[in-house]
Amino acid sequence: MDWESIDTYAKKWVKEAGQMIRASFDKTLNIQTKSDPNDLVTNIDQEIEQFFISKIREIFPNHRILGEEGFGDELTSSKGIVWLIDPIDGTMNFIHQQRNFAISLGIYEGGVGKIGLVYDVVHDELYHAISGKGAYMNDKQLLPLKEVGVKESIIALNATWVLENERIDHQLLIPLVKEARGTRSYGSAALEIIFVATGRVDAYISLRLSPWDFAAGAVILEELGGIVTNLRGEKLDYLSKDSLLVAKPGLHEIILKEYLKEGKW
Amino acid sequence: MDWESIDTYAKKWVKEAGQMIRASFDKTLNIQTKSDPNDLVTNIDQEIEQFFISKIREIFPNHRILGEEGFGDELTSSKGIVWLIDPIDGTMNFIHQQRNFAISLGIYEGGVGKIGLVYDVVHDELYHAISGKGAYMNDKQLLPLKEVGVKESIIALNATWVLENERIDHQLLIPLVKEARGTRSYGSAALEIIFVATGRVDAYISLRLSPWDFAAGAVILEELGGIVTNLRGEKLDYLSKDSLLVAKPGLHEIILKEYLKEGKW
Repeated sequence: MDWESIDTYAKKWVKEAGQMIRASFDKTLNIQTKSDPNDLVTNIDQEIEQFFISKIREIFPNHRILGEEGFGDELTSSKGIVWLIDPIDGTMNFIHQQRNFAISLGIYEGGVGKIGLVYDVVHDELYHAISGKGAYMNDKQLLPLKEVGVKESIIALNATWVLENERIDHQLLIPLVKEARGTRSYGSAALEIIFVATGRVDAYISLRLSPWDFAAGAVILEELGGIVTNLRGEKLDYLSKDSLLVAKPGLHEIILKEYLKEGKW
Repeated sequence: MDWESIDTYAKKWVKEAGQMIRASFDKTLNIQTKSDPNDLVTNIDQEIEQFFISKIREIFPNHRILGEEGFGDELTSSKGIVWLIDPIDGTMNFIHQQRNFAISLGIYEGGVGKIGLVYDVVHDELYHAISGKGAYMNDKQLLPLKEVGVKESIIALNATWVLENERIDHQLLIPLVKEARGTRSYGSAALEIIFVATGRVDAYISLRLSPWDFAAGAVILEELGGIVTNLRGEKLDYLSKDSLLVAKPGLHEIILKEYLKEGKW
């Protein structure tokens, strides 16, 4: 498979989509709500996903597509080449802030990440990797991640995950938040994984994400030696919703063993 | 008092300080630690504060100065004109991220805010207000804030404040986090107040801040109709450490009455 060629197309389309998003800032956003009122969706989300789908169908008709807005394919297996698309990761930020969102585009073959693109549109920062060929921000190569301990680390996680919730015994996460140097929450999984990749934070934890949220970031992060699993330490299958623990090497193991009891909960 | 003239100097110095900070990104940061290991301080922090102090002493020898790094005056009253300076608000972000920090400079007379400048150095966004004359981001006037309810609001607060702590019964804040549309945490009080002023978030809550953290942001936010108090609903005195509740109109009252029990805790 000519991944370089696929990557060239993917980058071109991501940049074009970014231009469409920037142009949309001046239009009135026509906001709809999905079933969950927190899960805001705009017409721009849908337009961008349909833009990607039409391009992929035209050039790579045998590839399959999994997209947040649901215009792609229904996937029950990870066979073949699959594009995982979140046209605007961080929709709430997009609407309220017009920043802190990203286009997230991961390309997988047989469930294995091959290409990851996360485009911070407002900053014009394209984070990208082809598996095995290094990770970059625009033309600048990103450095391999170094090990770090909890006391020196900034953990990205939302305050809701240290409150009683259905997904995890929140008592497991409380000592981590207390012992870390600090916590942050930005509201875009794709960007928060990239913040681990660039060392802006040291780990990112979420209890409820979809494959298109983390597929692209995972390729980039793993290229730099970062570790990507769910909160039980299991590999992700990139077909299902899951929890997410991404961290620098060393820190991932510490969080999993000392705080998350190796998933035994 | 010629506030326009003072403002012109202040803006010039803030821009010069921003240039010094940008130049420092290429130098190795010489990090010291204060008493609290979380309270990182760099040589840049100190240089910038000393830069401001030398300029203020030269042009306004009768003004007094309260600065985070302690090179200013010891103040026991708010008499006269006081400059409240945080040379780098968000030092941990500055060190780890080289973004999400700001220069914060508030100028008060008799304890009343007259000028507020918050400079997001990396984005070259200077937020500024002279009391009674409107608030601006660079040359663009900011719009008055509109009322908003809890369910439509994004609240900026750190995860540590919904865990058991010495400063507040954390059970008061938990329902707010659960009922809001979302929460965020950015790690720079000055910027988080500005995010309320620009509508990127709707409220910001912190349990432990110093006057130089909030003095500048408060002038800008109040100019737009935002409300600034501590978590008991009391006015801040801009001489002491305090808690902080800043919010859009309407939302501030709701949080104070329905969640914080009007300070009766």
